[in-house]
Amino acid sequence: MLPFARVTIIGLGLIGSSIARAVQATMPTVRITGHDADADVRERVRQLGFCDDVTDTAGASVVDADLVILCVPVGAMGAVGAEIADDLPADAIVSDVGSSKESVLTALRAVLPSATIIPAHPVAGTENSGPDAGFATLFNGRWCIVTPPEGSEPAAAERIAEFWRRIGANVDVMDPKHHDLVLAVTSHLPHLIAYTIVGTASDMEEVTQSEVIKYSAGGFRDFTRIAASDPTMWRDVFLNNKDAVLEMLQRFTEDLTALQRAIRWGDGDTLFELFTRTRAVRRSIIEQGQDDAKPDFGRSH
Amino acid sequence: MLPFARVTIIGLGLIGSSIARAVQATMPTVRITGHDADADVRERVRQLGFCDDVTDTAGASVVDADLVILCVPVGAMGAVGAEIADDLPADAIVSDVGSSKESVLTALRAVLPSATIIPAHPVAGTENSGPDAGFATLFNGRWCIVTPPEGSEPAAAERIAEFWRRIGANVDVMDPKHHDLVLAVTSHLPHLIAYTIVGTASDMEEVTQSEVIKYSAGGFRDFTRIAASDPTMWRDVFLNNKDAVLEMLQRFTEDLTALQRAIRWGDGDTLFELFTRTRAVRRSIIEQGQDDAKPDFGRSH
Ligand SMILES: NC(=O)c1ccc[n+]([C@@H]2O[C@H](COP(=O)([O-])OP(=O)(O)OC[C@H]3O[C@@H](n4cnc5c(N)ncnc54)[C@H](OP(=O)(O)O)[C@@H]3O)[C@@H](O)[C@H]2O)c1
Ligand SMILES: NC(=O)c1ccc[n+]([C@@H]2O[C@H](COP(=O)([O-])OP(=O)(O)OC[C@H]3O[C@@H](n4cnc5c(N)ncnc54)[C@H](OP(=O)(O)O)[C@@H]3O)[C@@H](O)[C@H]2O)c1
Repeated sequence: MLPFARVTIIGLGLIGSSIARAVQATMPTVRITGHDADADVRERVRQLGFCDDVTDTAGASVVDADLVILCVPVGAMGAVGAEIADDLPADAIVSDVGSSKESVLTALRAVLPSATIIPAHPVAGTENSGPDAGFATLFNGRWCIVTPPEGSEPAAAERIAEFWRRIGANVDVMDPKHHDLVLAVTSHLPHLIAYTIVGTASDMEEVTQSEVIKYSAGGFRDFTRIAASDPTMWRDVFLNNKDAVLEMLQRFTEDLTALQRAIRWGDGDTLFELFTRTRAVRRSIIEQGQDDAKPDFGRSH
Repeated sequence: MLPFARVTIIGLGLIGSSIARAVQATMPTVRITGHDADADVRERVRQLGFCDDVTDTAGASVVDADLVILCVPVGAMGAVGAEIADDLPADAIVSDVGSSKESVLTALRAVLPSATIIPAHPVAGTENSGPDAGFATLFNGRWCIVTPPEGSEPAAAERIAEFWRRIGANVDVMDPKHHDLVLAVTSHLPHLIAYTIVGTASDMEEVTQSEVIKYSAGGFRDFTRIAASDPTMWRDVFLNNKDAVLEMLQRFTEDLTALQRAIRWGDGDTLFELFTRTRAVRRSIIEQGQDDAKPDFGRSH
């Protein structure tokens, strides 16, 4: 049996449109309703055809739903929750895909006090955004973390888990606070570092912008990919997972200071020892199917 | 006319073996002699067949050469130079592919005081090493920076430049000091940051190693690729380009501190402004053919 029959997706960008396409591909009988605050996006989604219906208001999109997934930046979750509050069917489950979970849960609870809320976060994406960027296989083999609030009904969380499995993801369950700590390391800190280094490189006086671009294949270009991610989405992530991000940043800075000292004092053994350890992490990621084994991510040469 | 007729490559790993393969593919009449300190590597190279001859000593490999390219870690350049000093023909040009240039030039000059030395650095590579990792198209469309020492013969630098163009690279000429500053930004700092963050993530107590690996598709896995690069090579780079790396690290740390403050004080505008600027850098890199336009580096999903 399908976990849901009438799914509403609010926010039809990379993640929202990928979910819609994946549902269409794997559960073709499910009826998909979509809404986006941006009229141009709604128009484009009507052309692309991965929703059965696109509504002009958030409220109208949920009237008939048994699942509502919010796929907007985390800072907008509360506002969208408020917009659907009056029209949300009592037995619908509200979920989301936000990259931070504690703040989203708090925001949604405040505006939807009696709704069943089961947040989730698919750990998958690209640097692109908008409805054209999505694709049905985005979640294949990636992990989706479901973070049921304390006291929520296990059956509701299981339906959300089953939904994600159907569209290709592996599912893990975690409490929201731990999610935010884990993702601070595996996603938020990497993005912050990438944004920083790309900023640093663009602000140099002695090295021109054109040199930075020409010689970027030395390693720098890797960082520019994630530093090309959506500014609104990422601003919201940092503001909404502040404590965990600052905590991770603190540790990173300490480790960087230790390496700086090793370089300054010519301590090659410390460098060599770390560089050997980090290799093993890459190997595990490839062995567990979380990255391509091909050299250079399989870039064409 | 071909720039060289008898090329010797010392160090037959990723870069050395890629050069040999590229020469074979683009200048098939050139005779290629190879040497590597590691007997297993020599044996493997004999099987792979991209050298016409593989010698057991460095000296024996250069007796007949008009070009000798040193493709060993930058910390080994001086020792290899000393090994070939007695056998190097007077009219041969000595070049190298080291990732730092001032220290290599100093080391080679000390042991080969009367040789014509024209260092170069192809800004191309993958995270793999060894003779099996190389391929003939590695340098296609990438930049090779030639750093002729002051007072050297322009004709010699031009022959080196022509050699690199023949095997697919674009060539730029720079003085060694400026090279070291530019590459500190576009390559050395990115590697240092990547090694650090992978180290930080592996040393967490609250987040398990298995969690870091499972959810690495959130961004972290991108960093593990370059943090899987050869430890010896990278130890040597940091020890040999110390000043420029420490200078760049200092700026990076300042910028990171500013972002940390913006997060702490909830200053979303500063974050948004930076994240918008960094997007433009990515666009230029793609427009100038220095990275794949495909989302997520073209990883298969
Ligand atoms: N990108 C990733 O890699 C990734 C991965 C996992 C989870 N996530 C999470 O997924 C969510 C969506 O990210 P995305 O990458 O899909 O972003 P996206 O491509 O920018 O899509 C977000 C869409 O939501 C719309 N929107 C913004 N505010 C809205 C509102 N109040 N009501 C209705 N629609 C609104 C946006 O319209 P306009 O932009 O035109 O205003 C846009 O079309 C975020 O919470 C993010 O944290 C992202
Ligand atoms: N990898 C890159 O992305 C890249 C890009 C541009 C430039 N470079 C530069 O290219 C050079 C080579 O790097 P690579 O990536 O090709 O490394 P690699 O794959 O590890 O190859 C280096 C080879 O040199 C051998 N070697 C070490 N010391 C030697 C010595 N004293 N005499 C003779 N052979 C010796 C090594 O043998 P063992 O390891 O078995 O001892 C190994 O086979 C370095 O200077 C590096 O900075 C690298």
